[in-house]
Amino acid sequence: MKIYGDTQSGNCYKLALLCSLADIEHQWVPVDILRGDTQDANFLAKNPNGKIPLLELDDGRTLSESNAILNFLAHETPLMPATAWDTAKVLQWQFFEQYSHEPYIAVARFISKYLGMPEERKEEFKAKQTGGHKALHVMEQQLAQTPFLIGNALSCADISLYAYTHVAHEGGFSLDEYPAIERWIRRIQQLEGYLPMT
Amino acid sequence: MKIYGDTQSGNCYKLALLCSLADIEHQWVPVDILRGDTQDANFLAKNPNGKIPLLELDDGRTLSESNAILNFLAHETPLMPATAWDTAKVLQWQFFEQYSHEPYIAVARFISKYLGMPEERKEEFKAKQTGGHKALHVMEQQLAQTPFLIGNALSCADISLYAYTHVAHEGGFSLDEYPAIERWIRRIQQLEGYLPMT
Repeated sequence: MKIYGDTQSGNCYKLALLCSLADIEHQWVPVDILRGDTQDANFLAKNPNGKIPLLELDDGRTLSESNAILNFLAHETPLMPATAWDTAKVLQWQFFEQYSHEPYIAVARFISKYLGMPEERKEEFKAKQTGGHKALHVMEQQLAQTPFLIGNALSCADISLYAYTHVAHEGGFSLDEYPAIERWIRRIQQLEGYLPMT
Repeated sequence: MKIYGDTQSGNCYKLALLCSLADIEHQWVPVDILRGDTQDANFLAKNPNGKIPLLELDDGRTLSESNAILNFLAHETPLMPATAWDTAKVLQWQFFEQYSHEPYIAVARFISKYLGMPEERKEEFKAKQTGGHKALHVMEQQLAQTPFLIGNALSCADISLYAYTHVAHEGGFSLDEYPAIERWIRRIQQLEGYLPMT
């Protein structure tokens, strides 16, 4: 089983963290998006949407979208809940992550950290701040009530949201106003098998 | 069971279509986002992210994010597959929808149809066209190979992608270049229990 990814990308890091926490054997294939690796014909044949991470099984089948891969790899571990309701709650947080969190926090971080804050994207960087803080407020409200996003136990929802939240400062978001998020980050960093982002 | 939604919103229409196809009893509570219904304190208590659709169970528990609700409502119907791999493929298409399709096609449609194409958003409308066509190309490649997105049978993936794709022309996207998508749309419209968008 191969995972194509870049460990500096939060979407890819989700999978590296899961594999470390749940001890899942895999081969990591490094991909450089800035060099255009995801747009060459070979890669596009595996994922027509030209994005990482990408999972490739030994029989050649491929799966894209970080959260879909995450849940598939975790499906027989305690990180994916057993009931339909709890599964739905994991998905709720993951769709929230992809629509209301990642496009602000991860994109601001990309502009600042990957691209070095070019002049022509400074305005876009600033425009991302409001949406990012709105997403952090939503998380804070939940984490003030429960230690993890769907309740008392760690789930794939936490891994999905942790990826870009714990490096939100690299996108200009201070977490000082979010004490429950900060406690949750420390809780995750103390887990057995925790893997830091490289 | 209540569903808070606006049937003109594709994200909400997904649920109305599922309930019609799978004969799921529910109460539809109309919500008007332009009037600010999703931002009042009462609604924010149910969904801190202030978005529709929202599912409320009889015991008061709530679930947000259209695709999470869709899969929860469908979890014991043939629309959610039985194997982990096929479930992962449904999720792959749904995360693709929320990240690579909806932000282009649905937003262009919103600017044009809901807001009446105001001058100050014309440039944004134009900028959405490239990403929207890229998403349609990805769908076309799959639907040229299989009648439905994950294979031979209709699944929640099709309902999720159908919602905004079949009204893509309202966002300025002609489907003439996408014959496989057009055949798939007709296939869905011929299903027993099909419900048109109002």
